[in-house]
Amino acid sequence: MKSEFDFISKIRGRSILSKIGDDCAVLPKDSRTDLVITTDLLVEDIDFRLEWAKPEFLGHKALAVSLSDVAAMGAKPVWAMLSVGIPAQVWKTDFVEKFYDGWFALAEKFGIELVGGDVSKTPDKIVIDSIIAGEIKKGKAILRSTAQPNDLIFVTGELGGAAAGLQLLENGESLKNTQHKNLLLRQLAPDPQVEIGQILSEKNLATSMIDLSDSLSSDLIHICQESKVGAKIYAEKIPIDKNLLENFDFLDFALNGGEDFELLFTANPKNQKKIFGLQNESENYIFTHIGEITKNAETIEFISKDETRILDPEGFRHF
Amino acid sequence: MKSEFDFISKIRGRSILSKIGDDCAVLPKDSRTDLVITTDLLVEDIDFRLEWAKPEFLGHKALAVSLSDVAAMGAKPVWAMLSVGIPAQVWKTDFVEKFYDGWFALAEKFGIELVGGDVSKTPDKIVIDSIIAGEIKKGKAILRSTAQPNDLIFVTGELGGAAAGLQLLENGESLKNTQHKNLLLRQLAPDPQVEIGQILSEKNLATSMIDLSDSLSSDLIHICQESKVGAKIYAEKIPIDKNLLENFDFLDFALNGGEDFELLFTANPKNQKKIFGLQNESENYIFTHIGEITKNAETIEFISKDETRILDPEGFRHF
Repeated sequence: MKSEFDFISKIRGRSILSKIGDDCAVLPKDSRTDLVITTDLLVEDIDFRLEWAKPEFLGHKALAVSLSDVAAMGAKPVWAMLSVGIPAQVWKTDFVEKFYDGWFALAEKFGIELVGGDVSKTPDKIVIDSIIAGEIKKGKAILRSTAQPNDLIFVTGELGGAAAGLQLLENGESLKNTQHKNLLLRQLAPDPQVEIGQILSEKNLATSMIDLSDSLSSDLIHICQESKVGAKIYAEKIPIDKNLLENFDFLDFALNGGEDFELLFTANPKNQKKIFGLQNESENYIFTHIGEITKNAETIEFISKDETRILDPEGFRHF
Repeated sequence: MKSEFDFISKIRGRSILSKIGDDCAVLPKDSRTDLVITTDLLVEDIDFRLEWAKPEFLGHKALAVSLSDVAAMGAKPVWAMLSVGIPAQVWKTDFVEKFYDGWFALAEKFGIELVGGDVSKTPDKIVIDSIIAGEIKKGKAILRSTAQPNDLIFVTGELGGAAAGLQLLENGESLKNTQHKNLLLRQLAPDPQVEIGQILSEKNLATSMIDLSDSLSSDLIHICQESKVGAKIYAEKIPIDKNLLENFDFLDFALNGGEDFELLFTANPKNQKKIFGLQNESENYIFTHIGEITKNAETIEFISKDETRILDPEGFRHF
């Protein structure tokens, strides 16, 4: 069966300037600035469940997932549009007001202006399309296609927490009845790494970047495919979310769990010191070197205790 | 119960620069150009039914409705994004390829580039979010809020055909078994008035403009509300679609039927000759003078055979 990735690459062939294939499209704005723009569709019972959390969390997450795409280009988010489709019975409740409360709370944090949108009725499920545009100095957007062999591979923060939170939610835990609030919040209210993305682009420290939305394994293969390179990563180096429970398969969550919304980037080895140096500027800046880019095109070598295996990318797929 | 219009004006109050309320948001691009941008959400069984036509028509219409918003600003459409949510059983068919075929056929006609999008699974209904951006000379976008008392009111083309087509489709007619193909096509494959919109802005001929998506009565009241003016229109002047059937309520379809995607605009009386003069340039340019703007704020007087009544706006509302 065709996957959505196959389909997207087919559509891409029909696109005149082939702008499709990064976290955001990059479009010329003026002589000094590029516009980056992204759209994310969120569907009830596919991407979220209403019983998991208050509508404010959903408003937060709808914005956060798109902010993460803007962060992955190294850009500053500037304005947004939001289309919301709602069943009549939900429209009668305060869902939509609370949803926007959550959206605006996060938007204000980043100074993002809502410039437009659409409100529509749906037969029975909520759908949200979140559109965000950012700005970046001309030519400075960090793409997926520019990793070089011997570049170092870094991730921000810790991995696996969002997938663990999802599993706990699916097992019936909620923010009200949980001892694992941090994990649930990783899933329900992700923090997009907007500041770190901008610093990496301003200081020219990343050669390629993507956000971890699908999973480390499948997002790393996107960089490898676009850059026509390979990668090797080390199991022992992957930063595991310290809140993960003992009975969880740590590596599976960190490698194949989605929605951590951390940044995965590559850097020239000469910049390693500068990157680690950034960690002194804020306790929120956490960088871990997890591997290197190789010439072994589209292959990820996964090294664990001196054993090497080839990683099959796994993670969230719609089809 | 709250209407979507009330809700949108509440959201608008929270938007920093109040860009919401026109067919498109207008954003500065560079020193000479503004960017206009719009998003439209289309939901299966609310905005369209799959049994009504081949997927190519739906792809055409998804683009056409947003192009019409760009046309209503007087702008030139430039690029687009498209988010599509699809149930698994539809994904297995050739629906999505055919849908994009229809989309690209119309996009090529206007030289529009697809720059991004999202593909997602839905539980059981198709949803489409169509995003289009256009460009226009700085300060030249034609707003809803700038109609002046004594301006003349014009519409392009003929009205009521799309609503008649909808009724025929709902009564079980299809393109294969109909004697009213023109009416069905008005509903299934609307022609956005992109060229006329651009000419009106280039020649400074319109003081305000909106596209006829909801209905003549409710789109005219949008102009009146935004411009803080009123309007009087003449029943006998409204251009009725010549394909309408004898048993149809012509005026109801023309006044209250939506989705004709013609343009409704106001103009200074001194420009009347120039506007009618445009009709010599192409047989596709049809302008009808249907009334005047008044000082009678937010009131539409409807004059029929010397009788005047106040028009209650009717037309498509989601809630």
